[in-house]
Amino acid sequence: MKIQVVKKVLNANNTIAEQNRKLFAEKKVFVINIMSSPGSGKTKVLEKTLELIKHKIKSAVIVGDVCTTNDADRLSKTGVKVIQVNTDEFGGDCHLAAHVIQKAASDMDLDAIDFLIIENVGNLVCPAEFDIGENARAVVLSTTEGEDKPLKYPLMFRVCDVALLNKIDLLPYLEFDKNTAIKNIQQIKPDMPIFEVSAMSGLGLEKWIKWIEDQIS
Amino acid sequence: MKIQVVKKVLNANNTIAEQNRKLFAEKKVFVINIMSSPGSGKTKVLEKTLELIKHKIKSAVIVGDVCTTNDADRLSKTGVKVIQVNTDEFGGDCHLAAHVIQKAASDMDLDAIDFLIIENVGNLVCPAEFDIGENARAVVLSTTEGEDKPLKYPLMFRVCDVALLNKIDLLPYLEFDKNTAIKNIQQIKPDMPIFEVSAMSGLGLEKWIKWIEDQIS
Repeated sequence: MKIQVVKKVLNANNTIAEQNRKLFAEKKVFVINIMSSPGSGKTKVLEKTLELIKHKIKSAVIVGDVCTTNDADRLSKTGVKVIQVNTDEFGGDCHLAAHVIQKAASDMDLDAIDFLIIENVGNLVCPAEFDIGENARAVVLSTTEGEDKPLKYPLMFRVCDVALLNKIDLLPYLEFDKNTAIKNIQQIKPDMPIFEVSAMSGLGLEKWIKWIEDQIS
Repeated sequence: MKIQVVKKVLNANNTIAEQNRKLFAEKKVFVINIMSSPGSGKTKVLEKTLELIKHKIKSAVIVGDVCTTNDADRLSKTGVKVIQVNTDEFGGDCHLAAHVIQKAASDMDLDAIDFLIIENVGNLVCPAEFDIGENARAVVLSTTEGEDKPLKYPLMFRVCDVALLNKIDLLPYLEFDKNTAIKNIQQIKPDMPIFEVSAMSGLGLEKWIKWIEDQIS
């Protein structure tokens, strides 16, 4: 019974996700969905990313959280258009769903942008199950979370197209084996591009920006 | 429709949770449910906790993950009985549910223990919604996750009885304002005991152990 209902919810979600994807294609907007654990540094990555691309690529952001507008407040300082979605208006959902993005997108001028970044709710499990109509998915894994996360949360790494290994500046202070983490990501998704970055210092972000530019063009 | 089904699932869960709680009370086992983001250091906290209490309190652990037996393998080295639950056997659930604990508990000799620690799936959203029949709930927040997590994930902090602020040894290397984090926890749950610890170095764990001992006695 429960599984059947979950399937129905996911099927309904996928139908709307396809509508979103069609709309984004018509409007020539490339959409990336960024996912991770809480506190991995998604928002900091986006702050730095927007600073680096905003003069080259017309961008906007939809940011999802259960509560607060903290992330939208931070990202708005870049001057880029940001829409905050709070899932507690949608039953406290632990992920962004396609209908939430559909509603947020209807409030945006999609003709004015070429690139839409969607920052998902911090959660390494549930967001991986929900197609929201994006063109690409990125996962951020921070060095402070341990090397084993790709093996413990394989679906997230399997559905993503690119991985950022963030907080690389903290390596000297951690018992974290970077090569094991990379090997674990590749065990789940061979050939996944993995960019080692520090959103705090800016280290390594140029390869990530290049990847984004290649995707859009 | 969806909300009604979710309510039914939660009601069914609560019924089994009460059965668990009754069983644990009959067997005089105190049960704590430990929750956090992925990578906050729950397992490391438990490794150190078990080393400090295992000669004083007869303990056992149920550890939940979507996949892998990594955590059980680590915790078993303490010599304490550990049962690993993989939720991918239960549809890849993003949390432990009461029926999962009921099954795991049926495989344990509850007469042989006084204290059961349940390490939940790493997720700051969903596990907060599921009563599993525990007597107390602990949340681990690590300094690397940022000060705002209590405000962004308020339900988790509201339902917990104690908070551990972990990875306190990393403070010199982070832009993390400890006092803001504590204020944010207290904004969600005034009077919550908050223990500043480093599971890596062992710093501060004695107050946490004392709190556990007070709960059990």
